[in-house]
Amino acid sequence: MERTYRLVVSCPDRTGIVAKVSNFLATYNGWITEASYHADQQNGWFFMRNEIKASSIQFDLDAFKAAFEPIAKEFSMQWSLNDSEVKKRVVLMVSKESHCLADILHRWHSDELDIDIAAVISNHQDLKRMVEWHNIPYHHVPVSPESKEASFEEVTNLVGSYQTELVVLARYMQILPAKLCEQYSGRIMNIHHSFLPSFAGAKPYHQAYDRGVKLIGATCHYVTQDLDEGPIIDQDVIRVSHSNTIEDMVRLGKDAEKNVLARGLRLHIEDRVIIHENKTVIFG
Amino acid sequence: MERTYRLVVSCPDRTGIVAKVSNFLATYNGWITEASYHADQQNGWFFMRNEIKASSIQFDLDAFKAAFEPIAKEFSMQWSLNDSEVKKRVVLMVSKESHCLADILHRWHSDELDIDIAAVISNHQDLKRMVEWHNIPYHHVPVSPESKEASFEEVTNLVGSYQTELVVLARYMQILPAKLCEQYSGRIMNIHHSFLPSFAGAKPYHQAYDRGVKLIGATCHYVTQDLDEGPIIDQDVIRVSHSNTIEDMVRLGKDAEKNVLARGLRLHIEDRVIIHENKTVIFG
Amino acid sequence: MERTYRLVVSCPDRTGIVAKVSNFLATYNGWITEASYHADQQNGWFFMRNEIKASSIQFDLDAFKAAFEPIAKEFSMQWSLNDSEVKKRVVLMVSKESHCLADILHRWHSDELDIDIAAVISNHQDLKRMVEWHNIPYHHVPVSPESKEASFEEVTNLVGSYQTELVVLARYMQILPAKLCEQYSGRIMNIHHSFLPSFAGAKPYHQAYDRGVKLIGATCHYVTQDLDEGPIIDQDVIRVSHSNTIEDMVRLGKDAEKNVLARGLRLHIEDRVIIHENKTVIFG
Amino acid sequence: MERTYRLVVSCPDRTGIVAKVSNFLATYNGWITEASYHADQQNGWFFMRNEIKASSIQFDLDAFKAAFEPIAKEFSMQWSLNDSEVKKRVVLMVSKESHCLADILHRWHSDELDIDIAAVISNHQDLKRMVEWHNIPYHHVPVSPESKEASFEEVTNLVGSYQTELVVLARYMQILPAKLCEQYSGRIMNIHHSFLPSFAGAKPYHQAYDRGVKLIGATCHYVTQDLDEGPIIDQDVIRVSHSNTIEDMVRLGKDAEKNVLARGLRLHIEDRVIIHENKTVIFG
Repeated sequence: MERTYRLVVSCPDRTGIVAKVSNFLATYNGWITEASYHADQQNGWFFMRNEIKASSIQFDLDAFKAAFEPIAKEFSMQWSLNDSEVKKRVVLMVSKESHCLADILHRWHSDELDIDIAAVISNHQDLKRMVEWHNIPYHHVPVSPESKEASFEEVTNLVGSYQTELVVLARYMQILPAKLCEQYSGRIMNIHHSFLPSFAGAKPYHQAYDRGVKLIGATCHYVTQDLDEGPIIDQDVIRVSHSNTIEDMVRLGKDAEKNVLARGLRLHIEDRVIIHENKTVIFG
Repeated sequence: MERTYRLVVSCPDRTGIVAKVSNFLATYNGWITEASYHADQQNGWFFMRNEIKASSIQFDLDAFKAAFEPIAKEFSMQWSLNDSEVKKRVVLMVSKESHCLADILHRWHSDELDIDIAAVISNHQDLKRMVEWHNIPYHHVPVSPESKEASFEEVTNLVGSYQTELVVLARYMQILPAKLCEQYSGRIMNIHHSFLPSFAGAKPYHQAYDRGVKLIGATCHYVTQDLDEGPIIDQDVIRVSHSNTIEDMVRLGKDAEKNVLARGLRLHIEDRVIIHENKTVIFG
Repeated sequence: MERTYRLVVSCPDRTGIVAKVSNFLATYNGWITEASYHADQQNGWFFMRNEIKASSIQFDLDAFKAAFEPIAKEFSMQWSLNDSEVKKRVVLMVSKESHCLADILHRWHSDELDIDIAAVISNHQDLKRMVEWHNIPYHHVPVSPESKEASFEEVTNLVGSYQTELVVLARYMQILPAKLCEQYSGRIMNIHHSFLPSFAGAKPYHQAYDRGVKLIGATCHYVTQDLDEGPIIDQDVIRVSHSNTIEDMVRLGKDAEKNVLARGLRLHIEDRVIIHENKTVIFG
Repeated sequence: MERTYRLVVSCPDRTGIVAKVSNFLATYNGWITEASYHADQQNGWFFMRNEIKASSIQFDLDAFKAAFEPIAKEFSMQWSLNDSEVKKRVVLMVSKESHCLADILHRWHSDELDIDIAAVISNHQDLKRMVEWHNIPYHHVPVSPESKEASFEEVTNLVGSYQTELVVLARYMQILPAKLCEQYSGRIMNIHHSFLPSFAGAKPYHQAYDRGVKLIGATCHYVTQDLDEGPIIDQDVIRVSHSNTIEDMVRLGKDAEKNVLARGLRLHIEDRVIIHENKTVIFG
C-alpha cells in the first residue's frame, strides 16, 4: 500500500467547499487517490474524506495541517489529518468468549489489520495464554458488584497509560462507567450480538429465540452512556430456523459478530467513519 | 406438479410417532415424495409434514381422513390433510401502496401462485383499476375514525361471504379489530416494513432512518391482537447507507417487502407453516 | 426530487482534475449535492460523477456544456451532462416470460422508475395485453431461423424510429446481430439468468442444476457481440439446495432476475454507470 | 449435546422405506430427535438421515448395525451408522496462507468443532509455530516439480499412518495425485476461492477482477481427479465494486473462504452430507 494522508472533514454545507479543498490540494500538487463526499440535505451538513499520495506533497504532516488550518476555520470544519503509516494504538477488552479476540489477533498477526495492539484487558483469566502467545500484555482486572468502582478506575488508568486511541470491546460483557464513555467519546467500539435496536441489553440470542425471528444479527457501534444506543457502524444478519436451538444461535452468531466487528474496526482505523449526532457517515 | 396430499401434524413428542404414521402410509401404499420432521426438545413438541402422491393411494381425501383419525386421537394430534389441487381462497386487503398487490397479482396471473383470489378489499379507490383488469372483485370500504366499527363489520361480512381461508394484508395500513383477528387466528398474514421486533408500529422507515441502522428489513407474520407481535413466518433485510434518504429506504424496502410477503404466502398455501404458541415451524 | 445536472467524466488520471472541475462549478456557484470519484491506479484512469442543483446555476444545459468544453479538451475527457428531468427513452424487448416486464412496467406505472417507455418489441404475442393496458405500443416481430435477417432489420428500424436511448432485453431470449450491438454499444442492457461467468449461454438453470451449485444467480450486463461477455452492471444470488428441482430454480431465479435488472436499469438512467474497457464503474 | 446415533441411508426410491426404517427404530424404542428425507424424483433415488437418542436404545452400535443389516440389504442401501461421541480423525493440509487454518484451529480450540485434529501437513514451514502451540503435530513435506512423486508418497503415508477419516485442504494450493483422490474419495474436502464453476484453477481473484464481477465467492467441495469439479458442499459470495483492487478481493474473500470451509467441515463431521454422483444432498 502506498503511503497516504487522509483528510477527513465535516462542516455546515454550502457551495464551494469541494472547490476550496481540492484547489488547496492541487496548489500543492496533491494527488488524490480516493475521495468521498456526502451532503446531508436534511440537516445541512457536509462530509468529506480525501486520501492523498504522501509522496505527491512536499509538506510533512504538521506543515500540511498548518496550511489547511485557515480553510478549516473559514468553513467551521471539524477535521482530522492522518498518516496511513502511523498505526492507531488499540486496547482490546474481553471477558471469557474468545471468538472476537482470536479473530482480531489473527488478522493483526497476519498483517491484515494495521494497528498497534497495546494491551488486552479482561475481567477473567481465560484468554491470557492466547494473548501472551502474541506477545501482547494481558491485564486481569476482575469486576465484581463491590469492586466495580475500583476496577473501572484501574481500567481507566490502564487505558490512559497506553495513550490509547481506540478501545474495542470484543465481547467484554460489562457496562462501562459513564465517565469513561464520555472521556473516550467516539473512541470506544462495541460488538453487540443482535441487529440493534432489536434485543438490546442482556442475552440477545435468548430474546431472539423467544421471539421466533428468522434472522439473527450483530451490530458494531460506538459506545455512549446509553446502553446499546450509540452510533451504528456496521451490522449483519444470519438466517436461522425453528430447528436452531439457543446454543445453535450463539454459535452461528459468532461468525456474524466477528466479521462485523472486524469490518467496523477496519473502517475506523482507516478514518472512514464520521460520527454526526447519533449516526455515522461511512466512506467505505 | 404431480397431485399430492399433504398431511401436517403437531403433537406432544414421544417415541413411535414417525413409525406409526409412516406405517399407516405404507399400509395403504402411500408414496412419500417429501417429508419433514421437527422435535422441539425444549417444550417436548413434535411437528411433521408428509407429502404423498395422490395417485399412490386408493383413498379419496375423506376416506383418508377417516382412516387417519384413530392415530390422530391416540397421539393427541392437531392435524390437517389437504389436497394440492384444491386452491385456497384468499382475500387481499390493501390501502394505496401498489407494490405488494401488483407483485401478488402478477405471480397469480403468471401461474406461479396457486391460489384463488376471491376479492380485494381496500379503504381507498386507487388500486381498483389494476385489480379489475385481473377480473377480481374490488370492494371499497373507506375507514375513518368515526366509521371504524361499521367499516370493519362490512369487512368482516365480506371476508365471511367469500368463505375466505386466508386474509393477506398487503400493506393495508389499518389495525384490524381484535374480534376479527381472533376469528381468523392463524389465517391473517401481514407484511410489516421492518425487521421485527425493531421498529414496530407506525413509520418504520422513519424510525430506521433516525436510528441510523445499516440494514432495513421486512417481516411477514400472522396477525394477532397485539400489533406486530404475531408469529413470524419470514424476514429479510436490505443494506442501506448514510447516503440513503427516508425516500430511498421506502423505495428500497419495497423489494424486500414484496419478496418476503410472496415467500410467506407461498409457504402458507403449501401447508408448510405450523404455528405453535407464538412461533412458527417452517418446513420450507 | 430536486432537479439536478449530472456531470459524468472519465479521463486519464493526473493531479488537479477534481480541483479544476470543482473550481469550475464553484465559479458558477454550482451546489454539489452528490459527488463520486474513482482513480483506477492499475490502468491510470480517472472517473467522476457530480450531481449539481440545477437551481444553483445560472446556465441552461447548453451554455453549461459550452463552458465546460475547454476543460474537457484539456484533460481529454469523455463526458456527458444530463438533466435529471429529461427522461431517457427506453425500448423493452421481451419474449414470453413476463416477470421482468411486469416488474419494470409496475415500477414505471407507480412512478418509481423515471423513464419514457417508448415501446415494447416481442417475438411473441403473449405479453401484448399486459403492455397495452399501460398504453405502450407493442410491436410483434416474430423471429424464425429463416426470417432472422429481415426480423432484425425491422427491429433495428423500430428502435431507430423511437430515438431510443436504451434498449432493455427483459428476457428476450434471442441473440441480437453484431451490427445492432455495435450501433447501440453501451446502450443495450441484458439480464442473464446466472451469476456470470458461470453458465453463460442457453438454459443456465439446467446447467446450474447439473453442476449442483448451492447458489443460483442473475447478472445484468451491457450487450456486446460476444454472448454474455459484456460489462457487468450488477449481480445477485439466491440460495438453493438439493431439494430444489430445475422448475424451482427457474421460479426462485425470477426474483433475482427482476431485482437485478431493475437495479441495473436504475443505475443506468441515473447516469451512475461508466463503461471502461470491458468493466463498469458504478457510482451507486 | 445429548449422545445420538446417526443413521444415514441412500438407496433406490420405492414405497415403504420410511415405514420400514422408522418401524425398525420404533421396535427398539429408538427416540428420533431429528429426521430428514429427500426423494430425488428425477433419478429415482432416496436419501435419509435419522438422529436417534443413544440412551433410548438398548443396543450398542455393533448390535444396532447387525440388526439393521437385513433391512439395508432388502433395499440395496448404502448406509452408515455413527456415534456422535466418536470424533472423526482429521488431517489438515496447508500452504502459507493462515486464515483458514487459524479459523479451524480456533473453532476446535474453543470446542465449537468436535473433531480430532491428528496432524497438519504443509509444503512450507510458515505455520508450524501456530500449529504446535495447539499441540498438534506439524509435518513439513516440501513439494517441488522434481520431488512431487516422492513428496506425495510421503503425504499418502502420513495420512495413512493417522487412520485419517477426512483430509481438509485449507488452502493447500497443490494438486493432489489422482491415486490419493481415489483412495480417499468423498473424504478430501477443499476450499476454492471462487464461486465455482466460475474461475476454476489458478488465481481466481485475478480472474474475477479481470472479468469485473460484482460478487466474489468461495466454494467448499469434495476433491476428485478433475480439478475443482468435485461435488459442491457449500458456497457463499461477498459483494465487491470497481473500487476494490485484487488485493482487496484477496482480503475480503478470506472471510468467505473460512466461513464456507467451516460450514462444510461441520456438515461433514455431523454426517449431514451424502454424495450421489457428482452432487451432494445436505441435511443441514
